[in-house]
Amino acid sequence: MIYGKVALIGLGLIASSMFWSTRRAGAAGTVAGYDLSSEARDTARRIGLCDNVCDSAVEAVKDADLVVLCVPVGAMGAVAAEIGPHLKPGATLSDVGSVKGRVIEEVGPHLPGGVHFVPGHPLAGTEHSGPEAGFSSLFDNRWCLLVPVEGTDPEALATLKSYWEALRANVEVMDAEHHDLVLAVTSHCPHLIAYTMVGVADDLRRVTDSEVIKYSAAGFRDFTRIAASDPTMWRDVFLSNKEATLEILGRFTEELFALQRAIRTGDGEHLHAYFTRTRAIRRGILEAGQDTDAPDFGRVKVER
Amino acid sequence: MIYGKVALIGLGLIASSMFWSTRRAGAAGTVAGYDLSSEARDTARRIGLCDNVCDSAVEAVKDADLVVLCVPVGAMGAVAAEIGPHLKPGATLSDVGSVKGRVIEEVGPHLPGGVHFVPGHPLAGTEHSGPEAGFSSLFDNRWCLLVPVEGTDPEALATLKSYWEALRANVEVMDAEHHDLVLAVTSHCPHLIAYTMVGVADDLRRVTDSEVIKYSAAGFRDFTRIAASDPTMWRDVFLSNKEATLEILGRFTEELFALQRAIRTGDGEHLHAYFTRTRAIRRGILEAGQDTDAPDFGRVKVER
Repeated sequence: MIYGKVALIGLGLIASSMFWSTRRAGAAGTVAGYDLSSEARDTARRIGLCDNVCDSAVEAVKDADLVVLCVPVGAMGAVAAEIGPHLKPGATLSDVGSVKGRVIEEVGPHLPGGVHFVPGHPLAGTEHSGPEAGFSSLFDNRWCLLVPVEGTDPEALATLKSYWEALRANVEVMDAEHHDLVLAVTSHCPHLIAYTMVGVADDLRRVTDSEVIKYSAAGFRDFTRIAASDPTMWRDVFLSNKEATLEILGRFTEELFALQRAIRTGDGEHLHAYFTRTRAIRRGILEAGQDTDAPDFGRVKVER
Repeated sequence: MIYGKVALIGLGLIASSMFWSTRRAGAAGTVAGYDLSSEARDTARRIGLCDNVCDSAVEAVKDADLVVLCVPVGAMGAVAAEIGPHLKPGATLSDVGSVKGRVIEEVGPHLPGGVHFVPGHPLAGTEHSGPEAGFSSLFDNRWCLLVPVEGTDPEALATLKSYWEALRANVEVMDAEHHDLVLAVTSHCPHLIAYTMVGVADDLRRVTDSEVIKYSAAGFRDFTRIAASDPTMWRDVFLSNKEATLEILGRFTEELFALQRAIRTGDGEHLHAYFTRTRAIRRGILEAGQDTDAPDFGRVKVER
């Protein structure tokens, strides 16, 4: 047992996976949960998600040793303002938001002295959302980035690290600005681009939606999977990580224009060299163990 | 048995899968194969790919009732010129190229009268290539598009259709121009975009390659999978389907700029509405049976 009581605020894919994974690890004495939506709370009670589903965030965080904000990035400031005065002295407050700069700005000021603020971000997910989407192995061998703020207590950081490791994640520590740039490249921009391509396909009048859908196995399908993620979460991500996202999109557009020009001018050598280079990057990902080359992507049947 | 003898020219992922699938179905009396690379021919002989691996394309097509060109689009004209005079009268010549307009232009003129030309394109693949990449279930419940040219014999078309159905594909017939536009949307542009994003990530100096690779599970990984496909094949696709690809890329850039502007101006409503729409398209794909919502994507262990 790493924490006596854990409180999860917001009961979506990540929080529900944290609960099942925490239970699997025996990493907490008890886990309380809260969601703004009464429907989500009802669902959580029905499926046994959390030891105790509370009717307010304030009730959920009472006496908690670890409180994790699992709400969209844009909602974190308001939640922090609400629960801040009710946090136990010596408790750790963390979160799972995809952007760290804005969360630190908006959550930090609401925390009383004596509460340890250790922002976090587990890099794991599926295209599903809601309390029923979670499963215990979501974080297995995935990365969880911890982004301590100035003055973070080293012991609080070490304990949170051991908690995520008990959930079978690999933990890395970095600063907020670097986190937000790395995520713009590896996650935020790929998602925006996937959303865009799916939108283009839908707009095209000469090709019917049903054709796009029928023939999606030819590449488009991988885009739709990531473009199916939660709209509110992603809206907040882009609005919150504006600077890094726009920087990477600028570079992306520049590169895309260069490839477009190579197509227009028939420069096969340029295209071949480019595609050969990207193939090597894929090999690196396989070697790093973040994917497998099995046709099932290494994702196996879920278990709660 | 649908054809007495089938000849597969080019022994990559598609041809090798056709062989295993043809054998599973008992759809051909015998299958001959040929690849320009002696290494690929040796591999094919070693793993039992094809009943007979020949040392020339001319030898492979001798007496064949169906000849299928499984080489990159840019190489098809030359292969057709070589084998044209040796095709059996009444034989059907088909191909599996991702672009149909250019293949028809370049292959058609080399075929003698009495040979039925029925271009085709199975929409199936993995990120792997070469003779060892194939497996019998690659085409199961996937689409195969047949693109008859003017004057195609209806009986030859019907026989080729029944052959692909024996390989468990669903067959649809459309004209070449429409095919090339549909594929630009569902396959060619998504691939180019994935290649571009992978290239951008590699270029960015402030984020190391090893970080990109470590944290790829956050979305980027799906891009690398499709960006790992065969460079020669994809070079030829873009050079051969120039017009439709550039049209779709133009629309894509337009949409991307609109989303970039929404991020810059903080227009959350625009982003949320866009992301909600793309999520609905994903549901359509699930309902059409071209993917599953299981975490393993419905892709199961391969079998030869």
